[in-house]
Amino acid sequence: MTKYVYKFNEGRASMKNLLGGKGANLAEMMHIGLPVPPGFTVTTEACARYYQEGGKIPGEVIGQVFEALESLEETTGKKFGSPDNPLLVSVRSGAPVSMPGMMDTILNLGLNDATVEGLARSTGDRRFAYDCYRRFIQMFADVVLNVEHERFEGIISFVKNKKGVNCDTDLTAEDWQEVLESYKNLVVKHTGRQFPQDPKEQLVMAVEAVFRSWNNQRAIVYRKINKIPDDLGTAVNVQAMVFGNMGEDSGTGVAFTRNPSTGEREIYGEFLLNAQGEDVVAGIRTPKNIKELRSIMPDVYRQLEDVCSLLERHYRDMQDIEFTVEKGKLYLLQTRSGKRTAEAAVKIAVDMVKEGLISKEEAVLRVSPEHVTSLLHRRIDPNAKVEVIAKGLPASPGAASGQVVFSPDEAETLGQQGHKVILVRTETTPDDIHGIVMAQGVLTSRGGMTSHAAVVARGMGKPCVCGCEALSIDYKNEEFRVGELVVRKGDIISIDGSTGKVMLGEVPMIDPVLSEEFRELLKWADEIRRLSVRANADTPQDAKLARDFGAEGIGLCRTEHMFMGQDRLPIVQQMIMATTREERERALEKLLVFQRQDFEGILEAMHDLPVTIRLLDPPLHEFLPDAEELVDEIAQLKAKGDMDGLKEKQEMLKKVKALREFNPMLGLRGCRLGILYPEIYEMQVRAIFQAACNLAKKGVRVIPEVEIPLVSNANELKQLRELVENVASKVMDEEGVKVEYSIGTMIEIPRACITADEIAEYADFFSFGTNDLTQTTYGFSRDDAEAKFLPQYINQKILQEDPFIVLDRKGVGTLMKTAVELGRKVKENLAVGICGEHGGEPNSIEFCHEIGLDYVSCSPYRVPIARLAAAHAVLKKK
Amino acid sequence: MTKYVYKFNEGRASMKNLLGGKGANLAEMMHIGLPVPPGFTVTTEACARYYQEGGKIPGEVIGQVFEALESLEETTGKKFGSPDNPLLVSVRSGAPVSMPGMMDTILNLGLNDATVEGLARSTGDRRFAYDCYRRFIQMFADVVLNVEHERFEGIISFVKNKKGVNCDTDLTAEDWQEVLESYKNLVVKHTGRQFPQDPKEQLVMAVEAVFRSWNNQRAIVYRKINKIPDDLGTAVNVQAMVFGNMGEDSGTGVAFTRNPSTGEREIYGEFLLNAQGEDVVAGIRTPKNIKELRSIMPDVYRQLEDVCSLLERHYRDMQDIEFTVEKGKLYLLQTRSGKRTAEAAVKIAVDMVKEGLISKEEAVLRVSPEHVTSLLHRRIDPNAKVEVIAKGLPASPGAASGQVVFSPDEAETLGQQGHKVILVRTETTPDDIHGIVMAQGVLTSRGGMTSHAAVVARGMGKPCVCGCEALSIDYKNEEFRVGELVVRKGDIISIDGSTGKVMLGEVPMIDPVLSEEFRELLKWADEIRRLSVRANADTPQDAKLARDFGAEGIGLCRTEHMFMGQDRLPIVQQMIMATTREERERALEKLLVFQRQDFEGILEAMHDLPVTIRLLDPPLHEFLPDAEELVDEIAQLKAKGDMDGLKEKQEMLKKVKALREFNPMLGLRGCRLGILYPEIYEMQVRAIFQAACNLAKKGVRVIPEVEIPLVSNANELKQLRELVENVASKVMDEEGVKVEYSIGTMIEIPRACITADEIAEYADFFSFGTNDLTQTTYGFSRDDAEAKFLPQYINQKILQEDPFIVLDRKGVGTLMKTAVELGRKVKENLAVGICGEHGGEPNSIEFCHEIGLDYVSCSPYRVPIARLAAAHAVLKKK
Repeated sequence: MTKYVYKFNEGRASMKNLLGGKGANLAEMMHIGLPVPPGFTVTTEACARYYQEGGKIPGEVIGQVFEALESLEETTGKKFGSPDNPLLVSVRSGAPVSMPGMMDTILNLGLNDATVEGLARSTGDRRFAYDCYRRFIQMFADVVLNVEHERFEGIISFVKNKKGVNCDTDLTAEDWQEVLESYKNLVVKHTGRQFPQDPKEQLVMAVEAVFRSWNNQRAIVYRKINKIPDDLGTAVNVQAMVFGNMGEDSGTGVAFTRNPSTGEREIYGEFLLNAQGEDVVAGIRTPKNIKELRSIMPDVYRQLEDVCSLLERHYRDMQDIEFTVEKGKLYLLQTRSGKRTAEAAVKIAVDMVKEGLISKEEAVLRVSPEHVTSLLHRRIDPNAKVEVIAKGLPASPGAASGQVVFSPDEAETLGQQGHKVILVRTETTPDDIHGIVMAQGVLTSRGGMTSHAAVVARGMGKPCVCGCEALSIDYKNEEFRVGELVVRKGDIISIDGSTGKVMLGEVPMIDPVLSEEFRELLKWADEIRRLSVRANADTPQDAKLARDFGAEGIGLCRTEHMFMGQDRLPIVQQMIMATTREERERALEKLLVFQRQDFEGILEAMHDLPVTIRLLDPPLHEFLPDAEELVDEIAQLKAKGDMDGLKEKQEMLKKVKALREFNPMLGLRGCRLGILYPEIYEMQVRAIFQAACNLAKKGVRVIPEVEIPLVSNANELKQLRELVENVASKVMDEEGVKVEYSIGTMIEIPRACITADEIAEYADFFSFGTNDLTQTTYGFSRDDAEAKFLPQYINQKILQEDPFIVLDRKGVGTLMKTAVELGRKVKENLAVGICGEHGGEPNSIEFCHEIGLDYVSCSPYRVPIARLAAAHAVLKKK
Repeated sequence: MTKYVYKFNEGRASMKNLLGGKGANLAEMMHIGLPVPPGFTVTTEACARYYQEGGKIPGEVIGQVFEALESLEETTGKKFGSPDNPLLVSVRSGAPVSMPGMMDTILNLGLNDATVEGLARSTGDRRFAYDCYRRFIQMFADVVLNVEHERFEGIISFVKNKKGVNCDTDLTAEDWQEVLESYKNLVVKHTGRQFPQDPKEQLVMAVEAVFRSWNNQRAIVYRKINKIPDDLGTAVNVQAMVFGNMGEDSGTGVAFTRNPSTGEREIYGEFLLNAQGEDVVAGIRTPKNIKELRSIMPDVYRQLEDVCSLLERHYRDMQDIEFTVEKGKLYLLQTRSGKRTAEAAVKIAVDMVKEGLISKEEAVLRVSPEHVTSLLHRRIDPNAKVEVIAKGLPASPGAASGQVVFSPDEAETLGQQGHKVILVRTETTPDDIHGIVMAQGVLTSRGGMTSHAAVVARGMGKPCVCGCEALSIDYKNEEFRVGELVVRKGDIISIDGSTGKVMLGEVPMIDPVLSEEFRELLKWADEIRRLSVRANADTPQDAKLARDFGAEGIGLCRTEHMFMGQDRLPIVQQMIMATTREERERALEKLLVFQRQDFEGILEAMHDLPVTIRLLDPPLHEFLPDAEELVDEIAQLKAKGDMDGLKEKQEMLKKVKALREFNPMLGLRGCRLGILYPEIYEMQVRAIFQAACNLAKKGVRVIPEVEIPLVSNANELKQLRELVENVASKVMDEEGVKVEYSIGTMIEIPRACITADEIAEYADFFSFGTNDLTQTTYGFSRDDAEAKFLPQYINQKILQEDPFIVLDRKGVGTLMKTAVELGRKVKENLAVGICGEHGGEPNSIEFCHEIGLDYVSCSPYRVPIARLAAAHAVLKKK
């Protein structure tokens, strides 16, 4: 026969799946000798049986419950349902995974019109007994019988009013009797039957209600959000009552063994004197800081200190406990690992190593990489007063303030003049990049967590709030409305990309600083991890930031952003508009000067570390204005009669139309540009090596790695490798100095993965561009998918995750694995990394570790996260 | 020591790589006792040595040549360079692969001022001897010394003029002497030295010139076009001269053992009396039909008949021979398999089986699938007089005549009214499909063999001429110009997609008819092949045609073309513009009626055979007008003050903008539509099953196979399979009849290949959509790649072939193999086919055979080709 009921002394902490978290920990505490009121747990398997039987508790389960109840009667020396010395119990849910607030608790079960008198007699306190009974009816009716809680509160208010008193505690035993009568009437009115008087019936009903609550609406939603399987089920804990409401030497409270906000080593929490647990939650009385307990009940406080210390030593983690004090005696009702802020998580982990409680490896594992994200961005000063006007999706963490602008061009202009701006758009497109680059942050009224704005902003480490639907944007009048409020161009707003909040005015910020503890933890992580961590950075500033965050090189330096500056774009456009190779080369000659400066800056900032520089990747039309914009301008120039200007714009429009593509993502870009216009790549390579040589002459050690994007065929790389080698040796000859360098390729096209053996012949390194690889492997255009169907796909559970955020191991991952294997078969020492956005995402980093990559590269702000995640990957494997 | 020189009696036909085609066949003919003048072959290895030595013939090769020469002197009883009875030889190139006209021939080598007199004496014909000598000087100077041929002809003209005669034969020995002097002076003037008088020097120079000619410009180009490796090299044949110019009992000619145009069994060819080989080529005298030889030299003709018969029996193929008659004696100078038309190839192969010369398998292998393409399209009557005004790329075979129209809309309107039109565009886009559907053919001034127009036209089996750059199209005035000529809308033109010709007026056509022999050959192919062959067809007409061509089912019936008709498009637009599900369903209800008719027609035409019907695939915006078009219309409506019309168009413009995608190919299309708008797929499935049930009730056996496009994830198919099953069983219940059916998916996304095991759980069949699969595997948007970079990629040999034409085995093919293996692992009997354009391309069909596909599906016109190619795949494996 299956055992469906476990007494507390029969369980252990390791039995969470069967007993739920609460039940397992109650058993564990009892096991280690802590004062836990006795009780038993009905297992999650019983819950599963309940659902299998179509919502009926099987007889054998009920039988075992009653057996356990008898045993509990023996232990406590009290009798369930006895009017003399009645046994009262609490009934509480407890799932294997914590689902706070999902299900309810029933206290004082076992009371009825007869036993309440027994309780009064045995405690000598009628007022207390009636208070317990009315609490029980209220909770039972709410949880089991579906009578709304508020209706009962209304009765108490009425009676207090009548009596002219403010506090519940001012009510007398007789007052509570009156309340009780009203309660019972209310139950009859709502359920059509008397409040159940049989304690065993009460118990069975309560257990069933807990089982049922597993599938209530908020539990389902909570599980969906937190990705908890629907078939776990919940356990039910039945425990002998202890009473915090037996006078001024009694009370109830919650405590953390350390400060969950800062991580300081101190008992932290609050308590209420003469109260039961739900009073703390209900917020009717203001609880006291737990430290006051030291003076009120010094003995209990010492006990609490001992308990906390014992629990921490036993569980080797900070604990969150519930306790009750009954007439000066401390009882523990729950313990679990305490939730904590990222700051606290780091500090506690590091402190515990120093206290000898846990090992460095454990400390590293204790801090979740995703959790510490919040430590790595500018934040709104938590003490500041802010005026929140709307809330969107927290699309890219960090906070920023600035003037509202609606046009990317204006964002660029003002940004270059040193103004701080927030770019506000309905949505953004690749055409807006130049504006995003110069803005402090981005706010959109449409689009989700993977919209263009979100992706680009995360890539740049810029705050972004997306899909803020309350905003009604009016481009024409350059304003947006939120309800009645009108915000105009130039008005200052602040956004918090970590919470999605939009605020009026400038709000005080605090900079991200890696605490001492965090740096120490990361050092430990560095000792553990095998993966190297690099950063994606396009500017010397970013490079320095990345280095400070521990980057061991640059894994992706995009050169196209360098083409976007206002001083460069006109030259880039000249280059594109050129009709002869000579004309094109003249424009390139001018660009060379800029590019050389850019590369000098980055290579110098990253001296002694490798810098992967990707040659031009985006289609050329991204550097020209929109066709629609040009049509407008042409109309204006015509009206003005400006014939020269007109001709120029008409030429440009012609070019824009000629460059137009049906699917630019799959068009003339990446190395295809380099094959068709070798002079562009030649200029870039010349700039790289002139910069490298200049620095080498100054004694700076530089390690450029030239990267060819979008290769689908070994011959592309073969040809372009030759180009790079030729230009490099020519420049080094001219400069009379040698620099070490390597040549490699992005792997971002399925065919590159499949033919990686052929490609490896010409590559010193591979770097997975998993953004594009995900697009081509799925046949998803990221911008379109996000806007049109990805949200529904995730909603309908066709996809479990957005594959642009969490790497798709089965599809994209298999291709990556193939590429690594094929590549290394040909070239054993082939360096392999990843520079897609996944390079900063912990789950994806774990996969990269598993398939043997050499490094991950991510935005500077995610470097610490990646360092941590890379260590986790090693530890989880063990 | 390596043997570099083989006497003819030392070689065999099998030694082509070493001796070249000509040398090997001369040896073979000698071996089987045919009258071949003796000689020897300098091997291709000697040629390779020549290039290894940097353009020098190694001494040991020269030594072996001179040895062989001595042996030749013994055989012929003549002496090289002897003034008494001089040995004269021809020197001719001969590569392992035939490269006609690539390199030249030198006749009469060995003549000089002394031996010419010996020749005169030994033949008793001074005129003949001088004629030989001047021919030799002319050829030697041209081939070896680089003196232009024409300059010599000028001298003969001059002398003939002076003498007042018309024909070479009217010149006397003295006249030729005069010519000879001028020839020798010309050589001195051009080369700065005397014409070489040492016959051995002449021979070495000639051999070297042949080796050199392997790398002349036209040889290189020829090899590039015909994909012949550059390192094969050529052999050189040195052969004792026989003389066709020794009087009226001598002559020279070429003959085929069967008629190369029709395949009839008859000797076919021409000859010249009293002439040497190059006279036939030079075209100075008109040759006679070989049948006349029967009366002129009956004995020789009998010999020729015997030779032809022997050669056919020996080579078991139709031969193309060169012969010379010297004083009534027949000599053979060359034999090779004769080139033939597709018609002849088929007839000869079938006839030879009947004659017992070859097996059916050999007959099938003798006919190249690509070759017979020309038999499967309407052709211009070869006897018609046509006026060709321009030539473009032969993009889709077949010929058509019709009125010129420039707009797809007009093409549609006129086409529906029964007019024949040719759609003329600079390029086409997916928006033009409705026009292409209704046109007889397409002519574009831009774009290549894989441009949109070409691909779509081939898919529809419509003639298309692409990239006809001579055309200057003026949409505004609705005309195009070719030089001075103006062709206006409504003018009749004809195009020939097999040759790229554009002609003025209507030209007479002949319909494709499968000859008796072709049908017989295909039947043999059917017995051999394992792959089943289906057709891609969207209309009952196409279905019938495919069936007549031997299709065993429909592998791809696209439903989107059914949405494009002028009677349907407005309803489709209503459906798209609908703002509520109800509104959308009302529009779908109307479409249902049309779709049901369509499916009834196709299913009935293909009774007893499976019909794979793909549910809607293209993005919805393809059914709405262009944004630019709408902006125009709106402006006009505004001007007119038509407010209702205005509002409608404005709404549509809004929708068009909302549906706009960055990369529509990777956007909201395929099954993604079915997930987001299940009502569309429900309507289509209902139409399919209502049609099927209606037919089933009439006793027609129908086998619909419902196909879900663009699956990248098993859950998509899972969900849509449920949808199809639900609707199908509902309709069958309503109709009270059952039909057999299956549900499967296109495999056209890399991820679908990689996760084919998961997908196979929900699929009864897979059908590879290799067009899209190639796009995503390469990251190539077909339309853009072709327009922007594919031509250069092929030109620069980065790609060997256009992967949209010939399946990329290494990349796309590997994914296909993976998918087949994974799919069959889960479902042993999974049916797997291909319906991309590659399904009709022989090389790709071979691959499909190799990886174990069940069927290929292609356009109806390619069905016979596919049947043949599928048989070839089996035979080649043997």
